[in-house]
Order: sequence, then structure tokens, then C-alpha cells
Amino acid sequence: MPSYTAPVRDMQFLLHDVLEVSQAGIPGYEELDRDTTGAILEEAAKLAENVLAPLNPVGDAQGCRLENGVVRTPDGFKAAFDQMREGGWTALDCDPEYGGQGLPYLMSTAVGEMFSAANMAFNMYQGLTHGAYNAIHAHGSEEQKATYLPKMVSCEWGGTMNLTEPHCGTDLGLIRTRAEPQDDGSYRITGNKIWISAGEHDMVENIVHLVLAKIPGGPEGVKGISLFIVPKFLVNEDGSLGARNAVSCGGLESKMGIHGNATCVMNYDGATGFLVGEAHKGMRAMFTMMNEARLGVGLQGYAQGVVAYENALGFAKERQQGRAVTGAQMPDAPADTIMVHPDVRRNLMDQKSITEGARAFVFWGASLIDQAHRSQDKQAEGLISLLTPVIKGFLTDKGFETCVLAQQTLGGSGFTREWGLEQFVRDARITMIYEGTNGVQSLDLVGRKLAADGGKPVMGFFEMVKSFIAENKGADADFDTQFLEPLKAASKDLQSAAMFFMQNGMKSPDEALSGSYDFMHLFGHVCLGFMWGRMALAARKGLEAGGDKAFLNAKIATGRYYMARQLPATSMHRARIESGAAPVMALDAESF
Amino acid sequence: MPSYTAPVRDMQFLLHDVLEVSQAGIPGYEELDRDTTGAILEEAAKLAENVLAPLNPVGDAQGCRLENGVVRTPDGFKAAFDQMREGGWTALDCDPEYGGQGLPYLMSTAVGEMFSAANMAFNMYQGLTHGAYNAIHAHGSEEQKATYLPKMVSCEWGGTMNLTEPHCGTDLGLIRTRAEPQDDGSYRITGNKIWISAGEHDMVENIVHLVLAKIPGGPEGVKGISLFIVPKFLVNEDGSLGARNAVSCGGLESKMGIHGNATCVMNYDGATGFLVGEAHKGMRAMFTMMNEARLGVGLQGYAQGVVAYENALGFAKERQQGRAVTGAQMPDAPADTIMVHPDVRRNLMDQKSITEGARAFVFWGASLIDQAHRSQDKQAEGLISLLTPVIKGFLTDKGFETCVLAQQTLGGSGFTREWGLEQFVRDARITMIYEGTNGVQSLDLVGRKLAADGGKPVMGFFEMVKSFIAENKGADADFDTQFLEPLKAASKDLQSAAMFFMQNGMKSPDEALSGSYDFMHLFGHVCLGFMWGRMALAARKGLEAGGDKAFLNAKIATGRYYMARQLPATSMHRARIESGAAPVMALDAESF
Repeated sequence: MPSYTAPVRDMQFLLHDVLEVSQAGIPGYEELDRDTTGAILEEAAKLAENVLAPLNPVGDAQGCRLENGVVRTPDGFKAAFDQMREGGWTALDCDPEYGGQGLPYLMSTAVGEMFSAANMAFNMYQGLTHGAYNAIHAHGSEEQKATYLPKMVSCEWGGTMNLTEPHCGTDLGLIRTRAEPQDDGSYRITGNKIWISAGEHDMVENIVHLVLAKIPGGPEGVKGISLFIVPKFLVNEDGSLGARNAVSCGGLESKMGIHGNATCVMNYDGATGFLVGEAHKGMRAMFTMMNEARLGVGLQGYAQGVVAYENALGFAKERQQGRAVTGAQMPDAPADTIMVHPDVRRNLMDQKSITEGARAFVFWGASLIDQAHRSQDKQAEGLISLLTPVIKGFLTDKGFETCVLAQQTLGGSGFTREWGLEQFVRDARITMIYEGTNGVQSLDLVGRKLAADGGKPVMGFFEMVKSFIAENKGADADFDTQFLEPLKAASKDLQSAAMFFMQNGMKSPDEALSGSYDFMHLFGHVCLGFMWGRMALAARKGLEAGGDKAFLNAKIATGRYYMARQLPATSMHRARIESGAAPVMALDAESF
Repeated sequence: MPSYTAPVRDMQFLLHDVLEVSQAGIPGYEELDRDTTGAILEEAAKLAENVLAPLNPVGDAQGCRLENGVVRTPDGFKAAFDQMREGGWTALDCDPEYGGQGLPYLMSTAVGEMFSAANMAFNMYQGLTHGAYNAIHAHGSEEQKATYLPKMVSCEWGGTMNLTEPHCGTDLGLIRTRAEPQDDGSYRITGNKIWISAGEHDMVENIVHLVLAKIPGGPEGVKGISLFIVPKFLVNEDGSLGARNAVSCGGLESKMGIHGNATCVMNYDGATGFLVGEAHKGMRAMFTMMNEARLGVGLQGYAQGVVAYENALGFAKERQQGRAVTGAQMPDAPADTIMVHPDVRRNLMDQKSITEGARAFVFWGASLIDQAHRSQDKQAEGLISLLTPVIKGFLTDKGFETCVLAQQTLGGSGFTREWGLEQFVRDARITMIYEGTNGVQSLDLVGRKLAADGGKPVMGFFEMVKSFIAENKGADADFDTQFLEPLKAASKDLQSAAMFFMQNGMKSPDEALSGSYDFMHLFGHVCLGFMWGRMALAARKGLEAGGDKAFLNAKIATGRYYMARQLPATSMHRARIESGAAPVMALDAESF
């Protein structure tokens, strides 16, 4: 069975040595001193390591069962969920007005990595509730907030997002679910939704479904979509639970992974719903929910990589097979551990440098969200809006890749259920698909975010990288050659690709969209290169200040690996982008 | 449920327009005219499409069961196996002296792709038998051949390879299974083997296990390994089945994929075994088996990609979602098919260009084997020996990648069991691991094959590519820029990387081995680029001769895509290789 140890040390390094949170000037951050964050992370680690992680293979093996309309979660899930709720972990960054702890999003991100790494399928139940909380918090009426949010903050009630229908996923304009206005101001919701994560289960008293539907007579397409609250049980005026609403789980999806999470077909048979925000403005509200959800999915992706890497490393340190090519390292043992083999190292260093870089990227992204929300910083908002599809698309691709690499470290054992690596691969796979496939993320990046606000956010990003290089150049020759020069070259590839889009995308949008996926990866690599530059710099400063040598030197060595072995991908992506649309679009559909 | 249509048209193009088999001058090839190969392929296609493919999800869902020592295969497997045997498909390239049909290995490769694509787990039962047949055919005594081969050719009896033990996989020198000589010339075999594919099942009367074991008193390590035949039932002199041997299945492995194949723990409790070839020379015999098995695994890898791509394409042609960015293509429908979106095209073209290139590479490899065996051509033997780890390692990585890409084409549907794509991903995953992990393949390539025979094979390969470019340059400007120039640049990257190994590997083997995996991929890309050059040339000739325009133009367009979008990976691999060992080996094992 796989194990999990939360990377508290690395998280503390990011919070205090890289992001320097307590000096960041973001409201709420001043309280985040090293002891405070350390105490929170250590407590979260205990829950993740001792309660959630052991349930991960259980959830995978048992899955969920639909019995007389009720979904039964795997053995132990309910008790663990109660423990999580009672520990206040579901309320971490929620509004104190509704019972939340009001901590920065950054802290809930750090804790979220742990819970996701420990048990992704389990953690989705509260993750979806949190997403629904966000949407109601941002767009609901005062009455709706008062009715639903306190119970959602405490996760006594769950929440869901209902977008997809059998004939429409990405193209929500095709939605058929109807919402007919009633005399009392409510709506009758009728339709079928599929792939509803946590749509029905036995861990909460009530489930607050957020449902996209069309009010008859409204505009065509996405402009006619409205958002509704449809609770499983209607809520009485005194807050107690009332009648069972006409919404039910019609079936569970059989799927590749995240078996512990119930993926439901949801039937709305004239269910009572309540409009959230304005009629026909549902997409805007949904996007509030989705943007943060996308960051959360990026986190899920690399978090699976984190736990997979840990277990691969554990195996590599134990497994004895073959001899070092430079001579036996453990002459008294029948063989050396496989750590001696350069190709095993290459594999482990890929995993380590990707996951540590990804963590830095997501923590930085979370701090930008805090900056945008807590300091009303428009520049931070523009930047995180630009980076969101990169975090979602690139980090889930890389997280899955890391799981596959980790599985490979174990050889044949990696393919067996017993060792658990194959579950990480199967679970991580969904992160590349849901909350908008990674192809859709790349479309969002190139088709929307790049040109947003006259291109200010992307120009700001280029400027930020350029300044970082300029400000830190010349102090250390190794740092210059190993970090700054590769970062400069990679950033140049990114700018060149963006320029290609600008010059050619005007003539034909296909020229830009044919390269969108490569651009997303190119951008991701530059972000991780930038993160590694910042981390190596922080590590150098730490060493000068007499910090933990083993940890800080390892950080620099891992960064050097990323710059030398991962970053060269940027020139490949650039070449693919600059080959244009012709090779991509040449074939008629019939000639495939 | 997924479907499968065998690519007979493409196979015929490769056999007759690219490899020009009937003029190749290889004994046995002169009979392979277009009608003959067409008839064989069409018949094989029927079995693959109508019998094997429908059983693929059945095998995945049911898996195998161990009941009182007997492994029950999934419903329908036995009947299909009998149909395959009775159709003569297991005997295709076997020696006519033992009941085989004596066809070239190339033809059994083409048929093997179909059977593997249709049902990989099922086809392994005969694939392993064929591998064991090969080893006995090459190294067994006349008596052993007469006793075992006819029944193995017809697959009335099965065969297995028993290498791995719990504490040793790659490092076979650690094997503990003992073989004690008996007075009658037989051996008593005692030990435990794991991960034995098809080790026990209910589709054959007898199973001929090939077992690696050590005769007490022999040399240490791999030099003390011998190979033994250990039949499940001993064979009487008249060929009838005698006593049950002391070999049994102790359990079935629970694994990520290939559920329809029984992966067995095999216990040898003083079982009677018969030495194959000379004592202590077992590794040599095993390598005979493994080299061809590695080609077979490379084939399995891309074959899963083939069927995954077909189903992704089918989905993309049906699924209506969104509008073409250049304007609605199906204005009367609620949305265009997703084929209109450039990023969906990019994804499908990756799949198409990889799988068609891989097929060409494997067919060429199979023809080299025929050339080596049937014409005793030492040069062909050296070349295929060099290319074998590339075929196994690169094509299984790319085959898996193709399955993941195909799954992505389907969005959320790709994650559900219902659509079947996720099974292709899970099944393909093992091909990167078994028959030597892909890391081990890269070690074999760089540590052994590159320097073999004074480097003649690799120099021969470079020369071959160079001549191809020189001979075909200047006839067509598009062909020059779209095919020959990229191939030349990629080949230069490969030569430069090989040169780096030569110059630095002498000082420290780590310098070469740190780049072995990238070198394997770099080599693979050059091979596929070379294949695409040859295919595009053949397509151009076909067009000049008035051939099928739609097919041949699509072939050229697909090749152009590969050259523009896949081949740029070579410079990335070269950069990673040339960054040397330092970034890879910098960390102490304890600092990870």
C-alpha cells in the first residue's frame, strides 16, 4: 500500500523564503508567520497522512454504490468526512460572516494539496461544496447566502455544479434543461445532467445543486443561460429541512479512476429552483466558480504527482537490482539500489523538479488571488486570469506525466494494484479532462486571455521575468549560466510564439489556434523556469544566512536539473507553433 | 463500446508501395503479391473485427479467476481461441516441419497488429506460445522439437517465459530457482516465479513453461543461469499427456490492465524439467526469445494507439460542439462537429502521424528480420539488433501517448468505461514495462547496441538516411523542404548526440547513460521521420502512376504533419543529452 508524507518543509520554504508572505503587504498575510503556518500545516498533515491516505485504496477498490436512490460512499469515508468538518478544515478560507475562518486562499491551497495528494476522490466532496459556496457567495442574494452558506462552510451540506448534459459539454449554449417561472418567484427545473461529481451521497444532510438551465423565451445560446439553486431538501424558513425536492440520482458513472467519488446522472423532474443573480446571466456566475475550480484542478493534477513521486522514491531507495556502472556502491549487498542508475535518476529528477516547480507555481497563483481579492489589485487579477488556464492545463498534463514516470520507476510492481501507483495514474487522468479539457484551456489562453485588456497582463508577465533576470544577473556566475540564461532563452521563445500569433492570427485565427496547446506548454515551462529561478535565489540567500544546507543545496540542484532538462522543451514548442496551421488543417475531414 | 476496423489498405500500401516486398529478393517474399497478402489480411481482419474485438471489453470487465488451481479465462475466450487455432493463425510464420505455414515474419507481424489492436490481452496467449516456440526451435534438441513444437504451432499447447522472481526482475543474476540434476538426465526445479503471463489457463491441453534456473555449483550471477522446459503435464513417448508435473499457479496478479490475460505466480515444487541447450547458457537462449518478443511488444504498443485513434476519430466525426472559428461549417445543425477545431485536429494528426509512422517502422523491422533469417544477411541482422530497443521503447511510449491523446479527444466520455478508450490506455501501459522497461531498453541501446560490431550498424543507419536524402533531393521542392530538410536536421541531432556519447562516455559512463532515454526517443523520431520520407516518396510515385488520390494525398499530408510537428522534438532531446550527467547525478541519494 502506498504511503504519504506531507511536504511541510517545502511548503514552509515557499511561504516564507520565496513568497515571503508576512512581508507581502496583503491583508491577512501579516499574521502568517512561520510558526502559525507551521502549526496549521502540521495539523493538516496529520489528517492527510493518518486518516485520508489510508482510505485512498479503499475508495478505489470499493467505489460508490447506488441503493434505492441513495449513494453509499466507501467504508470509512463518512467518519473521515466528519473528522475533517469537525477540525474546521472545510471552513479554512471561508467568510467569517458565515462561519469561516477567513484565512487566505493561499493557506487553503497548501492544505488542499495535502488532502488531494492523500485522497483525491475523497477531497472532491468538500472541494465541490467550496466551489458552490464561492458562486453563491459572489452572486447569491443576502437571503440565499444566509440560508445556504453556513451549512456549506461547515460541510453539513454539500454542493455541486450541474453543467453537462448528454449532448453538450464544452458548448453550454446547447443546454436543454428548462426553468419555468412559478408564481411564488421560484422556478420549476426539468432536465437531465450528467457527470455530476458528488451529485448524491450519504455524508451530508442536504445537497445544494447549482444548475444551469434556460428560462423559456430567453435569448438563444449561452446568453440565455441562468443559474439556479436546487436543494435536495427544500429549506424551511427556520433553516430546518423541509420537503424532498424532485431531484434524484439516476445512475452512477463507471469510470477509469476517482472511484471513491460519486459521478452521478442527475434527473430534475420539475424540481423547485431559485434563481441566482440575474436571469440569463448564469454563465458569468458559473465562471466565478470555474476559475477558482480550474486552479483547484491544476493543484489536483500535480498533487497526484507529488504522492506518486514519494512512493517511487521510496521504492528506488529500497529496491536492489544491478550494479552502478561506475562500480559497486553496496559491495556487501547482492546488488546496489536502483538509485545508482543514471536513468532512474533522470526519471526521479523529472518527477521531483516538476512537482516542486508546480507547487511553487500554484502557491504563487494562490497569492495572486489573495492579492486580487484582498488588496483589490487589478494587475494581480489580470495576471492570475491569464495564468489560470496554464495552471490547469500544463500542471495537469505534467502531473499525469509525473504519475506515469513514478509508475515506471517501480517496473512491473508499478502495474500491480498492490503498490498503488496505478491508482494515482488513473485518478490523475481526469484532471486533464474536467473543468474544461486541456484543449479548451489552451483555447481560453490563446483565444481570450492573451488579448485581454489589450495584452497588458501578458506584457506584464514578460516584464516581470525580464526584471527578475536583470535584477539578479552578475552576482553569481553559476546562477547566471544555470538559471538566468536558460530562463531568458525560454522567455524569448514564448515572446516569439506570442508574436507569431499576433502577426498571423489576424489573417487567420487557425494560425493561432493550431498552436494553442503548444503555447500553453511553452508558457507553463517559462512559469516553472521562473519559479525555479526564484526558488534558487531564495535558496542561495538561505545558504548565505546559514540555513539548512542539505535542503537548500538540493533545491538548487533540482532547479538546475529543471533548467537543463525540462526547459529545452520551449524551443520545440516554438518550432511547432511557428510551423503554422497548414500542416494541422491540410486534410479534409473525410480524408482522415 | 469501441469498434475496430483493420487498416488493410494502409498495410497493403506499406507492403507493396513502400517495402515493395515481391521485388525485395528475400526468399519467400516473391510469393507475396498484392492479391495474396490482400487475401490473408482480409481474412485476418474478419477474425479481428468480428470475434476478437467484441471480446476485448468482456475480458477487461471479467478478468481471469483462479478456481482450484485452474485459471478460468473470460467468457468467449476459449471459443475464440479455438477459432483462431483452427484458422491456422497461430502457425503463420512457423516452420513447416512442425506444421507451420512458413510465411515470412512480416506477414505474421501485420496479422499480429490486427489481433493485438482488437484484443491485446487475448492475443498474448498465442504470442507467448510463439515466443516459447522460437526459443525451443532455436535451442532445443531434435527430440524436444519433435515433442513440443507441433502442438505449440497449433496452440493446442501453450507456452510461457519464466524469468522474474519476487526479488529480481531486470537483474536476472539474482535468480534463486534451483535445478538439481537427476539420474535420468532430467532436473528437479524448485522455486517461485512471478508475473508469468498466461502461466495457467483453460484454453490449452498443456502448457510448456520455459524456466530460468540455476544448477547448483555453477558460476555466479547470469553466467550460471540455465534454461529448462517444464511442461504442466509430462509428455509420454507416444506424445500423449502423462503425469501432472509439480508446477502450479499460486495466485493471480491484480493489475491496471490486460485483465483478460492471466498474470500468474508460479510455484515449482521439485517439478521435472529438461535442459534446453547447454548448461549455464540459458541467458543466450532467453535473449533469442526476448529480441523478437521486444519487437512484438513495440507492436502491441502502437497497435493500442491504432484502435484508440480509430475510435477517437469516430467520435470526433459525430460529436457536435461549438462552431468553427472561421465560420459555421454545418449551419443547419445546432453545432459543428468537433473536427472543425484546430486543437482537435492537432490532437488527431498527432495520433494519425504517430501510428502510421510506427506501423511503417515495425513492418520495416520485420522485413529486416526476414532478411537476416532468410538471406543470412549480417548487415540486416546488425541493423535490426540496433533498432530493436528503439522499436520497443519508443513505440510503446508513443503508443501509450497516442491512447492518452485519443482518450482526450472524447473529453469526459474518454474517462468512462462505456466508451472503452480508458481500457486502451490501461492495457497499453504495460508495454512500456514488460520485456525490459523502456529505461532498460535505452540502456541496451546506448550501453550495448551503439558500440556493437565497432559501431558498424549505427554508421550504416546514418549512411542509409544520408543516401536516401541525397538520392531523392531536387526532384520536388515541396518534398525537399517538407521532408528531406527536416529529416536531415533530425539526423544531424542524432549524430551529434552519438558523438557526445563517444567523446564523453569514455571519461564517465554516466555521461552517456544520463542521456540514454532521450537518445532512444531521438533515434525513434529519426526512424519515423525516415519512414515518413519513404512513405511520402512512395505516395508521390503512386500519384504519378494515377493511384488513389485521396489516400495518397492524405499520406503526404500526414507525413508533412509529422515532419513539422513531431520531428522538432529531436533538438530538445539533443539539448537534454548534451547537458550531460552533472544535473542528473548531482544529488546524493539521501538528499532526494
